Amino acid sequence: MRVPDEAVRSAAQTVFDNKTKPRGSLGRIERLACDFAAIRGTTAPGRLQPAVVLAAGDHGVAAEEVSAYPQAVTGQMVVNIATGGAAISVIARETHARLVIVDCGTITQVEHPDVRDARAGTMTGNIARGPAMPRRQALDLIAAGAALAGELAGDGVNLIALGEMGIANTTSASSLCAAFLGADAAVVCGRGAGIDEERLAHKIDVVRQALASNPPDATDPVGTLAALGGFEIAYLTGVTLGAATESVPILLDGFITGAAALAAARIAPAVTGSMVAAHRSQEPGHRLVLDELGLTPVFDLDLRLGEGTGAALCVPLISAALALFADMATFDSAGVTDAGA
Amino acid sequence: MRVPDEAVRSAAQTVFDNKTKPRGSLGRIERLACDFAAIRGTTAPGRLQPAVVLAAGDHGVAAEEVSAYPQAVTGQMVVNIATGGAAISVIARETHARLVIVDCGTITQVEHPDVRDARAGTMTGNIARGPAMPRRQALDLIAAGAALAGELAGDGVNLIALGEMGIANTTSASSLCAAFLGADAAVVCGRGAGIDEERLAHKIDVVRQALASNPPDATDPVGTLAALGGFEIAYLTGVTLGAATESVPILLDGFITGAAALAAARIAPAVTGSMVAAHRSQEPGHRLVLDELGLTPVFDLDLRLGEGTGAALCVPLISAALALFADMATFDSAGVTDAGA
Repeated sequence: MRVPDEAVRSAAQTVFDNKTKPRGSLGRIERLACDFAAIRGTTAPGRLQPAVVLAAGDHGVAAEEVSAYPQAVTGQMVVNIATGGAAISVIARETHARLVIVDCGTITQVEHPDVRDARAGTMTGNIARGPAMPRRQALDLIAAGAALAGELAGDGVNLIALGEMGIANTTSASSLCAAFLGADAAVVCGRGAGIDEERLAHKIDVVRQALASNPPDATDPVGTLAALGGFEIAYLTGVTLGAATESVPILLDGFITGAAALAAARIAPAVTGSMVAAHRSQEPGHRLVLDELGLTPVFDLDLRLGEGTGAALCVPLISAALALFADMATFDSAGVTDAGA
Repeated sequence: MRVPDEAVRSAAQTVFDNKTKPRGSLGRIERLACDFAAIRGTTAPGRLQPAVVLAAGDHGVAAEEVSAYPQAVTGQMVVNIATGGAAISVIARETHARLVIVDCGTITQVEHPDVRDARAGTMTGNIARGPAMPRRQALDLIAAGAALAGELAGDGVNLIALGEMGIANTTSASSLCAAFLGADAAVVCGRGAGIDEERLAHKIDVVRQALASNPPDATDPVGTLAALGGFEIAYLTGVTLGAATESVPILLDGFITGAAALAAARIAPAVTGSMVAAHRSQEPGHRLVLDELGLTPVFDLDLRLGEGTGAALCVPLISAALALFADMATFDSAGVTDAGA
């Protein structure tokens, strides 16, 4: 696991301090560039080459009627994403991010040249009644995700944004967060794609059943991920670990990618140094996850869509940060008088 | 003065509600697109064609030593902006925004093909001792700014972001805000480009002197603008009024553009309906200005640079909002099952 190079971060800040602007006046934008340089381990990080990894999976716990949408929507949305009509399709195009779609295990296998096959089955087990998947399967998904991160790094990608699609996956993410954080189900559960008060109360009950059926063991994060996770969540945990190994910054989206990142941090705590939180979503558990990971989101746009949309919307800010870092004149080069402050 | 079309806003929201995502799940992004449509007065607003109007001016009050930088920096930075080395130059390139640089009156006239001449003099009068400019000059600058907005609208520009450059212009903006809001100087003054505690106390005194030398008349916003404003601030007030007349949304940057917007709102209150606040800056008075204008900033990135940088950084989010509005599939077109919620 690579960790950010603090000497590089400091050197990058010195570079910014010589640019023609008051010191520190670009606030978070400067810090994004310096974080990026530190994670990459170079004061010449170049231009942004972003990818969004969108992992899809179906969830057995959908049988408990925890979602506002029928389970068939997972596969329908994978098609929509691949054919360009989904929100993430549009934002990835707009922000020049490569969109990598991975089917980690869905009921209806999508045959499309742009959908990669990492299928671990048709859906996870119903976590309200037993484990989501065997430990071996979780480890395989982690390895596959890490391999994808390695492949993308080899292609020159220097930022990996995480995205997901899977009906009922906020229930899985809520269960994982409750387990990892030792938090009550009522504190971590939210309305997901838009359930009402009554179904939210039911969802909280289902998460409690999931924790009772799969008692968490704080010393075994992979076991917890296998018991309560989703195929796509385990895969994104692997992407996170793989990206950090390759010195590639990981851009988190909302609550579900946060759960995958939390699992990764429980497996290898140093991985948090390679993470950037794009936004804070409306899911109440997301705030807890970001606090636990020690991350401050770049913005809060009241998003609750997933798919990596919040992360992809943050890409232009990171791109601008790197362009400013590379292209701005210095006081000397531009002949501008410095305050000497 | 045109006002947003509420029927269009509602129709635009209905368009978004049929897109393949949970209703409202794109939060502020949806609202940005619907605001844009309402201001433009059409449910088919098309793609974003943004411009940044950067107005520069020198301030006589710089003689009171209220800034961390010498006054020569205004002209030096206009050159730097025009030749591509300033932060706004880089961000405008990155975000495909047209950058229109206007010299509204600086000590050193910059001869550069990309710098427009709207010079009202070499600098304003020292507001600590008398008015910044005669009323006639303020009216001429307002007219010139409004004419530029009309020209840009004629060129197809459909978003005008405001930017500024002028050493000591936070002192002018602070004085205007104190006058328009009836607020104490200590509440609206901040550290500008980076002054220390001692100079901040002095700046507060200078603002008090400015208000004593130019007693505000709440019934005469143009008179207040002429007395306490800057050439670039008066010009941006005109750009704001002109843009609203042309149904072009106005994207505010930080505290100084906020002061120009506040002056415009005092002259024609309906203009606030055409404004979007990109960010909240670190200047304490900015929060008061945004509250008074009834605007919620899109993000808060701890910026305090000016030049329109915060507004330009927001451009990709508005661009994405319009792309989502135009390009996302509907539940029907994509064959995705709706929750019916």
